[in-house]
Amino acid sequence: MAKKPSLISFGSDNHSGVHPQILQSLLDVSEKYAPSYDTDPTSLELKKWIQKNWKAVDSHLVFNGTAANVLCLSAALESFHSVVCTDVAHLYESECGAPEKFVGCKLIPIPHKDGKLSVADVKAALIRRGDQHHNQIKMVSITQPTELGTVYSLQELTELRALCDQEKLYLHIDGARLGNACAALDCDFSKILSFADVATVGGTKNGLLFGELVILNRPELNENFRFRRKQAMQLPSKTRFLAHAFLTYLTAPLLATPLAEAPLWKDIAQKQLAMAQYLGKKLQEQCGIAPLYPVQSNAVFCLIPQEWIKKLREEFFFYVWDEKTFECRLMTSFCTTQEEVDAFIAKIETLKS
Amino acid sequence: MAKKPSLISFGSDNHSGVHPQILQSLLDVSEKYAPSYDTDPTSLELKKWIQKNWKAVDSHLVFNGTAANVLCLSAALESFHSVVCTDVAHLYESECGAPEKFVGCKLIPIPHKDGKLSVADVKAALIRRGDQHHNQIKMVSITQPTELGTVYSLQELTELRALCDQEKLYLHIDGARLGNACAALDCDFSKILSFADVATVGGTKNGLLFGELVILNRPELNENFRFRRKQAMQLPSKTRFLAHAFLTYLTAPLLATPLAEAPLWKDIAQKQLAMAQYLGKKLQEQCGIAPLYPVQSNAVFCLIPQEWIKKLREEFFFYVWDEKTFECRLMTSFCTTQEEVDAFIAKIETLKS
Amino acid sequence: MAKKPSLISFGSDNHSGVHPQILQSLLDVSEKYAPSYDTDPTSLELKKWIQKNWKAVDSHLVFNGTAANVLCLSAALESFHSVVCTDVAHLYESECGAPEKFVGCKLIPIPHKDGKLSVADVKAALIRRGDQHHNQIKMVSITQPTELGTVYSLQELTELRALCDQEKLYLHIDGARLGNACAALDCDFSKILSFADVATVGGTKNGLLFGELVILNRPELNENFRFRRKQAMQLPSKTRFLAHAFLTYLTAPLLATPLAEAPLWKDIAQKQLAMAQYLGKKLQEQCGIAPLYPVQSNAVFCLIPQEWIKKLREEFFFYVWDEKTFECRLMTSFCTTQEEVDAFIAKIETLKS
Amino acid sequence: MAKKPSLISFGSDNHSGVHPQILQSLLDVSEKYAPSYDTDPTSLELKKWIQKNWKAVDSHLVFNGTAANVLCLSAALESFHSVVCTDVAHLYESECGAPEKFVGCKLIPIPHKDGKLSVADVKAALIRRGDQHHNQIKMVSITQPTELGTVYSLQELTELRALCDQEKLYLHIDGARLGNACAALDCDFSKILSFADVATVGGTKNGLLFGELVILNRPELNENFRFRRKQAMQLPSKTRFLAHAFLTYLTAPLLATPLAEAPLWKDIAQKQLAMAQYLGKKLQEQCGIAPLYPVQSNAVFCLIPQEWIKKLREEFFFYVWDEKTFECRLMTSFCTTQEEVDAFIAKIETLKS
Repeated sequence: MAKKPSLISFGSDNHSGVHPQILQSLLDVSEKYAPSYDTDPTSLELKKWIQKNWKAVDSHLVFNGTAANVLCLSAALESFHSVVCTDVAHLYESECGAPEKFVGCKLIPIPHKDGKLSVADVKAALIRRGDQHHNQIKMVSITQPTELGTVYSLQELTELRALCDQEKLYLHIDGARLGNACAALDCDFSKILSFADVATVGGTKNGLLFGELVILNRPELNENFRFRRKQAMQLPSKTRFLAHAFLTYLTAPLLATPLAEAPLWKDIAQKQLAMAQYLGKKLQEQCGIAPLYPVQSNAVFCLIPQEWIKKLREEFFFYVWDEKTFECRLMTSFCTTQEEVDAFIAKIETLKS
Repeated sequence: MAKKPSLISFGSDNHSGVHPQILQSLLDVSEKYAPSYDTDPTSLELKKWIQKNWKAVDSHLVFNGTAANVLCLSAALESFHSVVCTDVAHLYESECGAPEKFVGCKLIPIPHKDGKLSVADVKAALIRRGDQHHNQIKMVSITQPTELGTVYSLQELTELRALCDQEKLYLHIDGARLGNACAALDCDFSKILSFADVATVGGTKNGLLFGELVILNRPELNENFRFRRKQAMQLPSKTRFLAHAFLTYLTAPLLATPLAEAPLWKDIAQKQLAMAQYLGKKLQEQCGIAPLYPVQSNAVFCLIPQEWIKKLREEFFFYVWDEKTFECRLMTSFCTTQEEVDAFIAKIETLKS
Repeated sequence: MAKKPSLISFGSDNHSGVHPQILQSLLDVSEKYAPSYDTDPTSLELKKWIQKNWKAVDSHLVFNGTAANVLCLSAALESFHSVVCTDVAHLYESECGAPEKFVGCKLIPIPHKDGKLSVADVKAALIRRGDQHHNQIKMVSITQPTELGTVYSLQELTELRALCDQEKLYLHIDGARLGNACAALDCDFSKILSFADVATVGGTKNGLLFGELVILNRPELNENFRFRRKQAMQLPSKTRFLAHAFLTYLTAPLLATPLAEAPLWKDIAQKQLAMAQYLGKKLQEQCGIAPLYPVQSNAVFCLIPQEWIKKLREEFFFYVWDEKTFECRLMTSFCTTQEEVDAFIAKIETLKS
Repeated sequence: MAKKPSLISFGSDNHSGVHPQILQSLLDVSEKYAPSYDTDPTSLELKKWIQKNWKAVDSHLVFNGTAANVLCLSAALESFHSVVCTDVAHLYESECGAPEKFVGCKLIPIPHKDGKLSVADVKAALIRRGDQHHNQIKMVSITQPTELGTVYSLQELTELRALCDQEKLYLHIDGARLGNACAALDCDFSKILSFADVATVGGTKNGLLFGELVILNRPELNENFRFRRKQAMQLPSKTRFLAHAFLTYLTAPLLATPLAEAPLWKDIAQKQLAMAQYLGKKLQEQCGIAPLYPVQSNAVFCLIPQEWIKKLREEFFFYVWDEKTFECRLMTSFCTTQEEVDAFIAKIETLKS
């Protein structure tokens, strides 16, 4: 099965394989027998760890990010509700309508500012409450870090939370890459999650093979969650492997540098943030290509001339984000190296000349 | 993280971990970068292998068996259709209503005979066709091997297929444990799959970490499948790992016995069939507990006196299948050993005396 | 537009037009302007009348019986729930899967006894409660009178209610023809409705042009009902006409006999019950065709020889209920006359000879 | 049941009762028996009339406009599709999410221009076609006349149709008030409907008691429609009354002026258009309140000072359309008189002074 070596990829953090330490962790729990469907000791240990450390009411493992987000909505909403989000929200743009199909609700897209939603945006969307002809707004959904690589500040989160309390709205945080926001804000998961009623904490895009966490902060939303998850086709059977991978990601010190105090997630997040900022700086300084948004996590957006894109993609994979403006997204991952970034910059320089 | 050692489990073939050779296979494809979402070379290789060897129109990776079955239905049915199946069908009894929720269709439960559905059963269910008030029957769904461990013969499959052709019905095969049926009938997957329009081929219950295949044998059902899968929250991102695990399962010779010609799936299926038959024989001969159905795959059903069950479950895990009759299910897996079976039998003998 | 005169119909009580007094009532509320969507004075008057006289928490007008039943379920159930009903329940057999499509839940069909469900039937169905793989039973749905024309006694209703209380199940009554049961039991609507948590009270099959009532007896099920109704495409706009028709049906004395004390509904129900019993008696005594079930409302079921059916249907319309056994249903309505019944009997007698 | 007389209503054309000639028509078909569920001679006559005169493949009666629109979508779309419409589309804003709930699809709201969608708007929305992560655009939905009372010209319809042909999109016309557009463009229903693949033709807002028509112009969308309608809880039983009302509306000459050649629909539409234009002219000339959009059907939108609104609503009912800008909608109906308009204008004049 000889294959052509893959291109260097700035396509997505899910183009990278599995972090070696995570892959190794699978072997650690492959003992002979364990109960399935979330009832094994490792899965229970993960639940307890999250309840203790993140103060969550409960947490549930699911297969992927689409499901985690949709199940967050499903736990909190009825079909006649609506959700306010940005017009670049993954939930709105890139789930092929899974929320509408599974929950039956409506998503209200608000033009973003640097990928974010503001208190004023949400207030403007709060119309026709109580009118039986109109979907009733019940949730604000934000992505942290945003789809454009920016990060809501703790002040912005505080303001959105206050509005949600005042207007009796749920706050959902799509944290497919939440570790990156924690690194950017120099805080723990629990700090950001404390603002949410329901949240997704991603594994797949942070070095795991698969698996995401649904975090529920309100007891009434947890009551029947396991039936929802099963009916949503999202109950994994061999959960011990998923749970152990998350425990490793969240709690284990980096093996390669055993003296480090930082848990694995932090090391991953810090490294890919550093690489993204290095890439953004080089693009601007050496190529005259300014990042379109502040580089606060592992993504850099920029306009690349159409005629260069084809040439670049012979050696590097990345996505053209907007097929009309040729806005491109460059993403770093746990395995991105400075050499790879330098090679990309060097290639652009040859195209410039 | 010291844990109490797990009980010997006859609970389910998903209580066993990951087959060592499959686990090893994950390392084989963890090279640095690969495209995600089914577009990497390994995923394409699996597709081609299945098209060539099983003559399928197409195949699609999904996370679990619930999803594979529901997506088979979704590809073939409209919401006003109905599906004829047995009253013990996993699809009917153990998916928490996922087919109804996601497809909107109705399942018609027919009292089973040894877990099976007969041509006469289906014919009797064919009523009110064309009547707008009544769900229109459009599919027959069978499980192979059945939930009760029995196996449809090639003759029975031929008859059901003929009826479906005659009555313009789709035939769905839930093959969560299809390898076991192949071993029992001494045939290849392609033989059984040739009877189906849509089918599930299971990985999770056969030694994989997770992952199932949806097999589509009709071009018109394949046309929009990838949108259905994504909207159903079942598009994995790092598909190379899933695909490689399946390629290993389906094509690799057993590493431990390198001279063997049998691919891994066959070795697994034959071994767990042998263990189930050994268990059934011992139960009958040594304990006077007759299996309730022919032991044709890796499950043995039997009545165990209620007072023994509690004692047995201190050392062995297994499910009480019927909470009213105390019918129990004992299941073997790739890692079941003769010693484990013998220990179980010995324990019963101590209870008898 | 000259049309062939219609056959005498024993097909259904919806083959009869609109009761003249109901039709007249439409003129009574066709004053120039009134608010729409349930906010006009007539609609509010109906609500108040029902709250006062039936002790209901609330009532809601919808277009047809399918919708009333589905919305009863929707108000009380989550998609992972299931409903126990008979295998001849209209909800199960004749709604083309509307409950599954709209609510996402499962219906569990239990073989009926004279169209009814017993306490023992429900108890036997109460399995796997709390098991996340299995739809959770949450409702018992009965039809009063049943699809086979029989009527649950007050004792039977009392027993089912007690079981529902004990097992925390909702009781739904499909009362598409509830007036007939009231006539049979010589009681008021409120008596039967007091057993239900949610119920349908039919108008269309009792002389109205269209319209049914959803009756809700629990405040928590009423909270968001109007959003559910609108999203279910069941919010009528000119509700004053529907409401006034129901007020006429429920409260007005029969105009043709102004001295009568009975309200219109009772007159209609008593008359069509009398006609059905007359038909059943004549069939048995003069034609030797015994009704298959006790004739307790406006339907008579009987086996008619296949060779007679074609001949009879040249002059009388009725349905062959079971396409395999030639069980037929004969239904009376508010406008069925003794002469029409006599003519039907006479025709059978000519066929016999 | 003495009630306070209703206010003069410019609230909606569904605040007016039933046109006397339509109400009378109900009596014409109340003969004793007729088959139900669309199989009676009157319903068949309506179908044939539409097929002949509008060249439609088929037409189907449903209860209300929400249902007609949702069933148009359901006939043409899969759940992973999306629909482009304006951000004031009734389908998007005022169906409480019925399309998302029933079809599972996504609606993409485009900022309107005078209530309309342009070819350029649709082209800009045509992104990510073929991308499995994104809902696939499959339909353009327009309202004719629009929610803001404007009317697409035949030239605009021609251009949208051409784009749909080119891009393989369905064109849906929400014609809840289609008669008004026909009057404005001086054409027949068939002219406008010829641009659509699927369309709603409204009855309720044009003088009928209830009922709308789903018009299907493509055979493949008609194939299973009756099952969809039933499962959507939209199969009326006594369809003869609905069908006859539509035949009267579409074909009968106005009874009050028997020499008129115009069918009833035209008389209704012309009259309410005239009243709206009279109202718009008076508002502008006498009150200095300019209509916000061209008055091309029976709605006038204008800004009324907040302090006047309360006073006006003591005598006249109308809706504040935008709760933030105090934009108001004034609507005429078949029974609006010049005296009523004059009284409204006079009241404003007293407020001005």
